[in-house]
Amino acid sequence: MTLENFRITHGKDFRLAEFAAGAKPISSGDKAADLARLDDICEKLDAMQDVFYAEHQRKLLVVLQGMDTAGKDGTVRSVFRTFDPLGIRVVAFKSPTPEELAHDYLWRVHAQVPRRGEIVVFNRSHYEDVLITRVHGWIDKAECERRYRQLRDFERMLTETGTTVVKCFLHISKEEQKARLEARLADPEKHWKFDTTDLAERKYWKEYMAAYEDAIAATSTPETPWYVVPADSKTHRNLMVAEILFAVFSAMKPAYPPAKPELAGLKVD
Amino acid sequence: MTLENFRITHGKDFRLAEFAAGAKPISSGDKAADLARLDDICEKLDAMQDVFYAEHQRKLLVVLQGMDTAGKDGTVRSVFRTFDPLGIRVVAFKSPTPEELAHDYLWRVHAQVPRRGEIVVFNRSHYEDVLITRVHGWIDKAECERRYRQLRDFERMLTETGTTVVKCFLHISKEEQKARLEARLADPEKHWKFDTTDLAERKYWKEYMAAYEDAIAATSTPETPWYVVPADSKTHRNLMVAEILFAVFSAMKPAYPPAKPELAGLKVD
Repeated sequence: MTLENFRITHGKDFRLAEFAAGAKPISSGDKAADLARLDDICEKLDAMQDVFYAEHQRKLLVVLQGMDTAGKDGTVRSVFRTFDPLGIRVVAFKSPTPEELAHDYLWRVHAQVPRRGEIVVFNRSHYEDVLITRVHGWIDKAECERRYRQLRDFERMLTETGTTVVKCFLHISKEEQKARLEARLADPEKHWKFDTTDLAERKYWKEYMAAYEDAIAATSTPETPWYVVPADSKTHRNLMVAEILFAVFSAMKPAYPPAKPELAGLKVD
Repeated sequence: MTLENFRITHGKDFRLAEFAAGAKPISSGDKAADLARLDDICEKLDAMQDVFYAEHQRKLLVVLQGMDTAGKDGTVRSVFRTFDPLGIRVVAFKSPTPEELAHDYLWRVHAQVPRRGEIVVFNRSHYEDVLITRVHGWIDKAECERRYRQLRDFERMLTETGTTVVKCFLHISKEEQKARLEARLADPEKHWKFDTTDLAERKYWKEYMAAYEDAIAATSTPETPWYVVPADSKTHRNLMVAEILFAVFSAMKPAYPPAKPELAGLKVD
């Protein structure tokens, strides 16, 4: 199991270029076996979430980031569908509204963090505020550094108040994005997913990779690690995210609340 | 198919006593066949939700009401898990907070209605405000009648602005509740679900049935019908809720947004 090699717990010497988007470090090499393994983990995750929800003490926040077409939606659909809808909530952050822009950039994010017993998935997140903003020069270097610190502080507070924070960078190659965008163009039923600004953003690929590298390096801690998930293969991506969740849940050891002795002998009339 | 017999579209002559909680009107009589049919419908629902989400025009609100142990959570877990978490949200309404109580009773409810392309499930709802409140005499008859009208007006506004409203009363018998409460008492891992106030509320069973009958009668319209779902059998309950959703989605005929001709010939560099 090589999951640790993809868990970034401190930024020193982090180089995104050392991670191949097309790699399949978690794969058995056999797709059918990988899919069976995914089913198996998802079944275990389902059982663990049951207990996590019943425990009603801790919170789990999963951040999904990645370039357009990296598979954020697909990961939600394939992996997070495992969970009982009662205990999971997906928040997709879009361009901020005027009301949101009138507040600090963490305001809308903080409003959506998980409650006790809840899993929340951020489909895009507060990291957009050090990615697109930096790539387009809407914030300068000093402000970007300040935000890295603010993000660390914010996430530290969350962990200190009972939230496990897991951050996944779905890592695809520029070539794979090309193939996926072309597939969307070719299929009229997928046109609704296509935004021509995606093509414009694609021109900044190098700048985005640099922004991701710096953001991951600046905000990875042992308590709030980033995982680099090679995501050119969808099966591998799903399997790795599921394995990450399984490792996280296993470490949390959720437990049913203690039985209530006062219920012993109660009669239902 | 007898679904129509359980769809209440006007309150005249509605008598809850005419509906047996232990009936299985949708069942084939064979449990394995029922479960296979449920799987089959869920697969279709999944495909339909995909299109509904992509269409991004209309909204779907499902209200689940029922006595304690009637299976609101179980229905979410078994039927609504079908859906992609991106497009579904479950809202469990608990005892109102001081902030919520400082507003009108529909304030917190309105804040949670679905957005375009979204399915929202209310696990309990604004109907608590004409049920528990009435049973315990916190509102008088005149106020209760006023609220029935307010609920009709509120739901009419929702339907007029693009929301399909589906209301399901999960109908269990007092005997079945007894068995389920006893099962919770007998299993220490289920004690967290047990609230001794459940036993207190159970004493008002007759009053609750009268309150449900009047609420359903007063708020059923062709646009915002109630369904009475016989729910002593969990398999039957799940199957019937799935059938209702299937009928609702089929009538809505969701469609992919039109292809965008301006995308033709676009090159991905």
